[in-house]
Amino acid sequence: MIRIDDHPNGVDRVRLITFDRPEARNAFDTEMYGAVADALAEVAERDDLTVAVLTGEGSAYSSGQDLGEMGRLGSADRSEQRESGEYGFTKFIGTIEAFPKPIVAAVNGVAVGVGTTMLPYCDLVLASSAARFRLQFASLGVVPEAGSSFTLPIVMGWQAAAHVLFTAEWLSATEAVACGLVWKVVEPVALLDEALAVAGKIAKMPVVSLVETKRLLQATRLDVARAARAREEAVFSRLTGAPANREAIAAFLEKREADFTNLAGQ
Amino acid sequence: MIRIDDHPNGVDRVRLITFDRPEARNAFDTEMYGAVADALAEVAERDDLTVAVLTGEGSAYSSGQDLGEMGRLGSADRSEQRESGEYGFTKFIGTIEAFPKPIVAAVNGVAVGVGTTMLPYCDLVLASSAARFRLQFASLGVVPEAGSSFTLPIVMGWQAAAHVLFTAEWLSATEAVACGLVWKVVEPVALLDEALAVAGKIAKMPVVSLVETKRLLQATRLDVARAARAREEAVFSRLTGAPANREAIAAFLEKREADFTNLAGQ
Amino acid sequence: MIRIDDHPNGVDRVRLITFDRPEARNAFDTEMYGAVADALAEVAERDDLTVAVLTGEGSAYSSGQDLGEMGRLGSADRSEQRESGEYGFTKFIGTIEAFPKPIVAAVNGVAVGVGTTMLPYCDLVLASSAARFRLQFASLGVVPEAGSSFTLPIVMGWQAAAHVLFTAEWLSATEAVACGLVWKVVEPVALLDEALAVAGKIAKMPVVSLVETKRLLQATRLDVARAARAREEAVFSRLTGAPANREAIAAFLEKREADFTNLAGQ
Repeated sequence: MIRIDDHPNGVDRVRLITFDRPEARNAFDTEMYGAVADALAEVAERDDLTVAVLTGEGSAYSSGQDLGEMGRLGSADRSEQRESGEYGFTKFIGTIEAFPKPIVAAVNGVAVGVGTTMLPYCDLVLASSAARFRLQFASLGVVPEAGSSFTLPIVMGWQAAAHVLFTAEWLSATEAVACGLVWKVVEPVALLDEALAVAGKIAKMPVVSLVETKRLLQATRLDVARAARAREEAVFSRLTGAPANREAIAAFLEKREADFTNLAGQ
Repeated sequence: MIRIDDHPNGVDRVRLITFDRPEARNAFDTEMYGAVADALAEVAERDDLTVAVLTGEGSAYSSGQDLGEMGRLGSADRSEQRESGEYGFTKFIGTIEAFPKPIVAAVNGVAVGVGTTMLPYCDLVLASSAARFRLQFASLGVVPEAGSSFTLPIVMGWQAAAHVLFTAEWLSATEAVACGLVWKVVEPVALLDEALAVAGKIAKMPVVSLVETKRLLQATRLDVARAARAREEAVFSRLTGAPANREAIAAFLEKREADFTNLAGQ
Repeated sequence: MIRIDDHPNGVDRVRLITFDRPEARNAFDTEMYGAVADALAEVAERDDLTVAVLTGEGSAYSSGQDLGEMGRLGSADRSEQRESGEYGFTKFIGTIEAFPKPIVAAVNGVAVGVGTTMLPYCDLVLASSAARFRLQFASLGVVPEAGSSFTLPIVMGWQAAAHVLFTAEWLSATEAVACGLVWKVVEPVALLDEALAVAGKIAKMPVVSLVETKRLLQATRLDVARAARAREEAVFSRLTGAPANREAIAAFLEKREADFTNLAGQ
């Protein structure tokens, strides 16, 4: 599910969290959301850990929400889970959006959906030159999540955000660094070393300064992001199972291109 | 005045709106503001239209407010028009700032004043390599409009916005894409095709997702932009006809350089 | 302390303010904060001055807060000074953050601490290719100041801001222009001429338009920046003299590397 390495390669005070479901391209199901949230919460609490590094096993960073699980769970179950905030997506986003210590992401491959929408909550995003990013919400008949209707325009600019959200097209690593989603693009073989190196530099600083600095940085953003997330979740729930979403899922299962042209106004 | 092409070049669900007063470099008078606003409103309402594309006929995108009309109308008339929100500038900006479907701008040439300040309300701005941008408000003794005192620092960054607003200098297409005002620069001959191509891609997505995504994107911006516009309009009205504005207009009519150096404090 | 040149090199309506303590790398002590604030206040008030240009004498722009003075003053004195808003840092930042006329910075060399955190309040920042920037707060066991926990993510983007704040590493002029902290990088020999040239262009515009435009630009930012500064100052006071700050100062005096690894939770 996930792997946890504390002080990886001897880098003190750093925890490396690896999404480890390569057979599912590291898709997030309820269990994995919870495991990552718990692993982060320990970094927040433990005095010997200062920085969290996130990466993925294999060729993907994360393919996003596990659509198989999404299909198995009924819409009511999902709404309940979202509202309770105890499990899955809500627990994970609630943890990362208010995380009190620095987070470094090392995006090793494809990052889809929540694989991308988690990135604005990471303080530094390094990406392999092989990484690619996709926000497929429109093509699924739903809307952005995780506060990304607020965070993406801030991070990427309105136009780059509108483009990826309105077209659901892939963004290359080069495009992602140009628009600000990614801080630095690195050769694949060097990605983890570079991410751990910068995490290690940060981890040498006084933790009290890091925590208070991050709290100050978050102060002008956290409430706005949470309000955006609340707005998004209301719409997301409403559109899940609506005609466009049903057509997107049917087309996926039938391996054909979706056709939304007769769904105007629905 | 304007031309309307629905499904141009066979691109379904797209309306192309062309500013068509090339003899006035596509300057906006009351009638053209109203015509564009109405053409947009139909896109918002009609189920067979999903994306609006804006461009200009001839060598200009738009030279901005029609100064001839501005001169003919008294200051009181303009104030009344602005306050009523029924005609002209206010109607156009009120429509575009809250527009519920995606807008793509294809800036084919010079974009002055409102020709530029409308662009932050477009979701994607493509520009011909021959396009140039100018915010001439300071040189006319007035202030930014259309919420641009808020939108330009967000889109371009404070410094690039301050530079164009404080100097009234031209911005090239290259500079405009570098600072974020423009999403993509295209060879003049390819501009409209590229704009229609991306509009066509967007128009294939479920309209419900596009509309709800745009509403979510606007949610953190719309009230702030409107408040900025209200502040701007109060100052704009006060400065219209004041000494600096009178000197700017006199210099324009007398074909000499304006001299504002004796107007300190006025 | 500082030099004041009105209409430097014949550039009308411009005041050049030069930080002139090269023996202290233009560090700010209470007297210099006050002198710069007063020199700026005169630009705000005088009808014959429209634009302020800031630069430094010698190889530094400013090395930031005078740590010698900081050491001599007790923590209680500093808190009193900060709260009174009458002297030093608070007076300077209070003046520059709400300054009613355009400010151009010509960063000639190293800019550390407040030497960098003042820059988001300048409307245009030109930098010598030899300039370097550093936010050393974390390495001193304290937090960002001058509203920079708000202004730096806005200007540089969250990730670039987090990197310099979390690592206390130097930023080159090239990096500073790439992330948006600096508007333009200039050869050292041409820096002041270019800064005065753009200041001179601005100074030819009607002052009423410049002042009202700047007020409109500030309207969406000023209250947020002040609230950020208030939050920062509460934390800064609390951390001054705390274990991490004491270790940083002790290491500085003993010319050794600081070791914060046993200070978790303090």
